[in-house]
Amino acid sequence: MKTGSYRVKAGQKVKLEDWKTDDDGGLEEDDAKVLLDELEDQLFDLQERLYAERQQSLLIVLQARDAGGKDGVVKKVVGQFNPNGLKITNFKQPTEDELAHDFLWRIHAHTPGKGMIGVFNRSHYEDVLVTRVYSMIDNKTAKTRLKHIRAFEELLTDNGTRVVKFYLHISPEEQKERLQARLDEPEKNWKFNPGDLKDREHWEAFTEAYQDALSTSTDEAPWYVVPADHKWYRDLVISQVLVSILNDMNPQFPDIDFKPSEIRIK
Amino acid sequence: MKTGSYRVKAGQKVKLEDWKTDDDGGLEEDDAKVLLDELEDQLFDLQERLYAERQQSLLIVLQARDAGGKDGVVKKVVGQFNPNGLKITNFKQPTEDELAHDFLWRIHAHTPGKGMIGVFNRSHYEDVLVTRVYSMIDNKTAKTRLKHIRAFEELLTDNGTRVVKFYLHISPEEQKERLQARLDEPEKNWKFNPGDLKDREHWEAFTEAYQDALSTSTDEAPWYVVPADHKWYRDLVISQVLVSILNDMNPQFPDIDFKPSEIRIK
Repeated sequence: MKTGSYRVKAGQKVKLEDWKTDDDGGLEEDDAKVLLDELEDQLFDLQERLYAERQQSLLIVLQARDAGGKDGVVKKVVGQFNPNGLKITNFKQPTEDELAHDFLWRIHAHTPGKGMIGVFNRSHYEDVLVTRVYSMIDNKTAKTRLKHIRAFEELLTDNGTRVVKFYLHISPEEQKERLQARLDEPEKNWKFNPGDLKDREHWEAFTEAYQDALSTSTDEAPWYVVPADHKWYRDLVISQVLVSILNDMNPQFPDIDFKPSEIRIK
Repeated sequence: MKTGSYRVKAGQKVKLEDWKTDDDGGLEEDDAKVLLDELEDQLFDLQERLYAERQQSLLIVLQARDAGGKDGVVKKVVGQFNPNGLKITNFKQPTEDELAHDFLWRIHAHTPGKGMIGVFNRSHYEDVLVTRVYSMIDNKTAKTRLKHIRAFEELLTDNGTRVVKFYLHISPEEQKERLQARLDEPEKNWKFNPGDLKDREHWEAFTEAYQDALSTSTDEAPWYVVPADHKWYRDLVISQVLVSILNDMNPQFPDIDFKPSEIRIK
């Protein structure tokens, strides 16, 4: 499976309407399950090496519109990793203390240490998305923030943290169906937030803000626009990208400073 | 399956030699797998309710000797939960900043918020175990610390956090086998820490320190001495205890402040 076509190239200007939300790679869900099982084993093994090596880390950024599938990716894809090597952060509305600092202050505090896989369920990109759509910041501030984001992610990559950013791309029709399901199924009611309907009315403004955010894609910290109408295909694409990045990072079991054969356990 | 016999009663004095390390409940590993699958589904559902409810939290404390299986429990049992509702903390040697505070300072900072399941892989109990065996603190300090631990755990339970503590109980023979495997299998070499052999020489002193630690068992924050020579049985016992505690907590999907049928999504 080729995932390169979902990657935003450095310098590329993205028009989201040209990116498919319902791509399925010509696969059936059952085929995908088989592929996914294999990828899961690879992810697990690669993570163990990363954890044992303690030289590099991986930061996975998840962004999406409401009901776009961030929680689903955490459950299905991230859930395959050994939780001991995982650090998951859900960024909510900033607190008073967080607002008293620059917007990257709270983000920086949650980046993964060496050997760890960090997952941001929402991230510093909210500060150039929702804030922008609701005019809490002006365009000039957004531009400055995007510059700071680039520098910040470069700081991380220079220190051995690979950054990969996924935008889960769904259609307005698919979002409607998912929100409706949250209303129709009592056990999903708690997931429904009436505020999501307000965001939905600003669909186009969010599209524009996302397009600018996607411009921070670089070779070292790429964005992927993941077709996310089919949940199983979304999980497959993300798993494939993660396997390929972790393979490229090529973590190794560390050298040991003792000779196993010379040690006697009493 | 009855797990009550592994629970330390409030006020009970534990002599670890009376507690079996190789109990298997009269089960075969294959039967256990079937039981475990059912328990996993229950754990996942109960966690979703806990997360949705956002009124209570659960703190799981894992303590064991080297190679006792803490990481295995995180991988096999904790790994069944949705990572979005999990907060795992590995407590290592305290940093200089941490040492400049009381011993519960760094612990408190990592307790789970409402709706979350927190896992301590090692914990505040290290401060009455390893420190005591190597005479970094005297008996009087240990006694004072145990008192503070009781008060601290009561603070948590009074605030809606259930605390459950597992001591993974292995025999010296089983530990030897596991340490030897880390020497014999190159892909496990990185897990071997020559310092573990020193701890092994102090087996009895650790036993005594653990026995005192286990005296902090209360109805609200119980200790379980889990027979852990058989990894599959260990996982089964812990899963069973967690299901029973979560059932007792009885988390509910929250009331919603809107009428689903009255909402129209445009």
